[in-house]
Amino acid sequence: MGAKYDALKAHLADVENLNHAQGLLNWDQQTQMPPGGAPARAAQVATLARIAHEMFTSDETAKMLDDADAEIAGMPYDSDEASLVRVVRQDYEDLVKLPSDLVAELTRATSMAHEVWAKAREDNHFRTFQPSLEKIVDLTVQVAEHLGFQDQPYDALVDQYERGITTARIKEIFDAHKPALVALIAAIQARSDRVSDAVLHQEFDVDQQRAFSVEVVQALGYDFNRGRIDVAVHPFATSFSRNDVRITTRFNARWLNPALFGSIHEAGHAMYEQNVGEALEGTPLGAGTSLGVHESQSRMWENMIGRSKGFWCWAFPRLQTIFPAQFGRVDLDTFYRAINKVQPSFIRVEADEATYNLHIMLRFELESEMTAGKIRIGDLPEEWNDRFEAFFGITPPSDSLGVLQDVHWSMGLIGYFPTYALGNLLAAQYYQKAIQARPSIPDDIAQGKFDTLRTWLTENIHQHGRKFTSDELTRRVTGEPIQSRDYIHYLQTKFAEIYGL
Amino acid sequence: MGAKYDALKAHLADVENLNHAQGLLNWDQQTQMPPGGAPARAAQVATLARIAHEMFTSDETAKMLDDADAEIAGMPYDSDEASLVRVVRQDYEDLVKLPSDLVAELTRATSMAHEVWAKAREDNHFRTFQPSLEKIVDLTVQVAEHLGFQDQPYDALVDQYERGITTARIKEIFDAHKPALVALIAAIQARSDRVSDAVLHQEFDVDQQRAFSVEVVQALGYDFNRGRIDVAVHPFATSFSRNDVRITTRFNARWLNPALFGSIHEAGHAMYEQNVGEALEGTPLGAGTSLGVHESQSRMWENMIGRSKGFWCWAFPRLQTIFPAQFGRVDLDTFYRAINKVQPSFIRVEADEATYNLHIMLRFELESEMTAGKIRIGDLPEEWNDRFEAFFGITPPSDSLGVLQDVHWSMGLIGYFPTYALGNLLAAQYYQKAIQARPSIPDDIAQGKFDTLRTWLTENIHQHGRKFTSDELTRRVTGEPIQSRDYIHYLQTKFAEIYGL
Repeated sequence: MGAKYDALKAHLADVENLNHAQGLLNWDQQTQMPPGGAPARAAQVATLARIAHEMFTSDETAKMLDDADAEIAGMPYDSDEASLVRVVRQDYEDLVKLPSDLVAELTRATSMAHEVWAKAREDNHFRTFQPSLEKIVDLTVQVAEHLGFQDQPYDALVDQYERGITTARIKEIFDAHKPALVALIAAIQARSDRVSDAVLHQEFDVDQQRAFSVEVVQALGYDFNRGRIDVAVHPFATSFSRNDVRITTRFNARWLNPALFGSIHEAGHAMYEQNVGEALEGTPLGAGTSLGVHESQSRMWENMIGRSKGFWCWAFPRLQTIFPAQFGRVDLDTFYRAINKVQPSFIRVEADEATYNLHIMLRFELESEMTAGKIRIGDLPEEWNDRFEAFFGITPPSDSLGVLQDVHWSMGLIGYFPTYALGNLLAAQYYQKAIQARPSIPDDIAQGKFDTLRTWLTENIHQHGRKFTSDELTRRVTGEPIQSRDYIHYLQTKFAEIYGL
Repeated sequence: MGAKYDALKAHLADVENLNHAQGLLNWDQQTQMPPGGAPARAAQVATLARIAHEMFTSDETAKMLDDADAEIAGMPYDSDEASLVRVVRQDYEDLVKLPSDLVAELTRATSMAHEVWAKAREDNHFRTFQPSLEKIVDLTVQVAEHLGFQDQPYDALVDQYERGITTARIKEIFDAHKPALVALIAAIQARSDRVSDAVLHQEFDVDQQRAFSVEVVQALGYDFNRGRIDVAVHPFATSFSRNDVRITTRFNARWLNPALFGSIHEAGHAMYEQNVGEALEGTPLGAGTSLGVHESQSRMWENMIGRSKGFWCWAFPRLQTIFPAQFGRVDLDTFYRAINKVQPSFIRVEADEATYNLHIMLRFELESEMTAGKIRIGDLPEEWNDRFEAFFGITPPSDSLGVLQDVHWSMGLIGYFPTYALGNLLAAQYYQKAIQARPSIPDDIAQGKFDTLRTWLTENIHQHGRKFTSDELTRRVTGEPIQSRDYIHYLQTKFAEIYGL
């Protein structure tokens, strides 16, 4: 390309490098850092965030964007060049509204809050975390006010994670499938004795769990030459380049699910990042496009593949070899039903596919109300528990199993939760299309051949990075916007078979 | 302090945060990063280095230094304030001479060269590394030319690591003790059959080695709440704050020394950083003052403590408990003699105390000549081997055991090696003073009580951080400049006893 476009790319590469360095500081804090390092780390993250923000929101960026835009005039909408300028301009117009001091203050507050939250959760003591959360919500609402919104601050927050979406649109999508979920769960509850997950609650050596998780995610296509797996309190995937995408997991020596399905989930995120087009490496387009689309990848691999009968036709004999005492006399069907047991429970990340979106709807209500000033932070534990009772018919016995369970708020991620539910819906839409396009996918999976699906995902979704918004991508791939029809159909079919509904 | 001084401190804190972030990127690259991450990491490190360099060498820094200087006029020489302005001004005057592009190019070249060197060493193939090294030496000589020097480029390079020293002064110090070393080694060689180190070459479970290393460095005073230990090809210590100082080591399942003495060595570096005065945290003074002084700490703990009879009076029974099959029937004296066996060998980091400084003198010759253009990089393997033969009477059988053994050149650290030998001399000088001031130190060590020495070191050396130069500090602590008398006396006394000279 021309000199102006190249200058823009070089400038943006510096910002990307600062952001990725900050990403490494965060990864290290959650996986490696000794406890004493927290205050200095907060200061380091704050400096990097501030400098990156200043560089990106400088007048120089605006000038470079204009110059590059003129230079690439006429390039197609979906070209790398037009996409870069278009997407970066939108990022710029958002971020330029945020004062550097506010960004730095929020970064510092969240970096400090992480340890406070972890301790509060450990001690089951919300009041310890409350001042941190009050500060974070206050700063986040300030962010929303700077970004601007139509109806309420929460609109601006969700737009950060899923561009173009609003509180009202999310409510509409949630309202459209909540009744079907509630009905499905009620029907299952009436037959809850049909499925037991007892086989998953046995002693499982952690090193063996690790070995099996590694084998599985490697088979799915996660590339360890460009990644690694570590332990974190709240597992996540993070990318410093398409060639260095790391996942984290956590082990429970008496329960197979967290490490196994958690690893597959994070590998789903990571494969998205590892398969972004090489030409986008080092540019702001070199990452997943939205959190909802990201979650569609993790949830597809975790649930639509990882909790399917076909997958375990291939994987179960391997699991039996690794844990002969635990599974030697368990049949595939019993295991398949166990990993698909539906039961209202307290912890979102451990929720089954049928109840999961209800956990999100709860958080969506609370977040939109607390950022609108309708709920005081001090009242959150009570609000959480009351609504949880209304949604699920059970009350969390402790804040650690309730309002304190998620890391997100300590990280300033308010408005992020809805994307998990949107991801479930998108996963069903995309998977439906993938099977239409490549009908051998289910059979291939049953034979441990995952590249039929993975290459379809790479061609249709991964390679594009951030070139298209979630909505643009979804229409390109499926011909329609996000909808809950496919997801509800998927759940009803699957659980009708398992529970004999 | 006043507003001008505080503004300077805040500005410098940003630079420190960038430097520490870069430190983490390097630590990660050497201990955690998947291989695919190298190119992106090089770009990230280059961006951070360039921005830190630009911020520090900006006119703003000069202005802030002048303003703060005026504000703190009259503060004592050894006050934190006067020291900060004085030391930073010196750093500034050096760095301002270096063009940002050259710094970035060197950072990028060394970041890429690391993997190349590691592979070349693994493959025993110098030619693979040669182009990287040629580039690094070329860039380093350019650095020297920008910094300026009296006699030769190497003067400017050694001054970066040991401020105030010159090639001529190092040569003088080396020449002053080389004959005594050579004579000592010859006398020992004549009685080499007196000591066997066979007991160190057995099977040692790596996890057990790790447990013992951790127990030892913790007992010495390395604080794991503010640190951690990892595995690296070339072990090092690194600090991102006095409260996050990490060490690395490497394990050999058939040889005890690398992990054990390597861990003590790095813990010696790390305790220096962990015990820098709290008031200096986050400022450019919050680190060890020079590489020579740093090495005095690591070598003191590794050798003067870790290879002393007294230390093993306490530690050997513990080692016997961990490795009963290997040491159950070995007596303390045999073990003590084994760990002090003197024998010319190829690898510097595995060299004994008597031959160690000769390894440095070899590198000193080669570095000063190759930066003066007197040796071509392509001739280095031959030059290395010829001189090694002259120094030690043996010839390296491979470049991996010769010119490729050290990581330093791949990192652009030319002029660094002499500080290792200076560190040995300083260790003897400081330890001598410590025992004069606290005569119970040897007895305390024999009882596993290390804080008598450590607190003396903290009070006299560690707490000052970078407030004083190596020379200033050495004169304050010992009343004289660096000399080799104490070190030679220490070696002669110790080995006369062991070898019956």
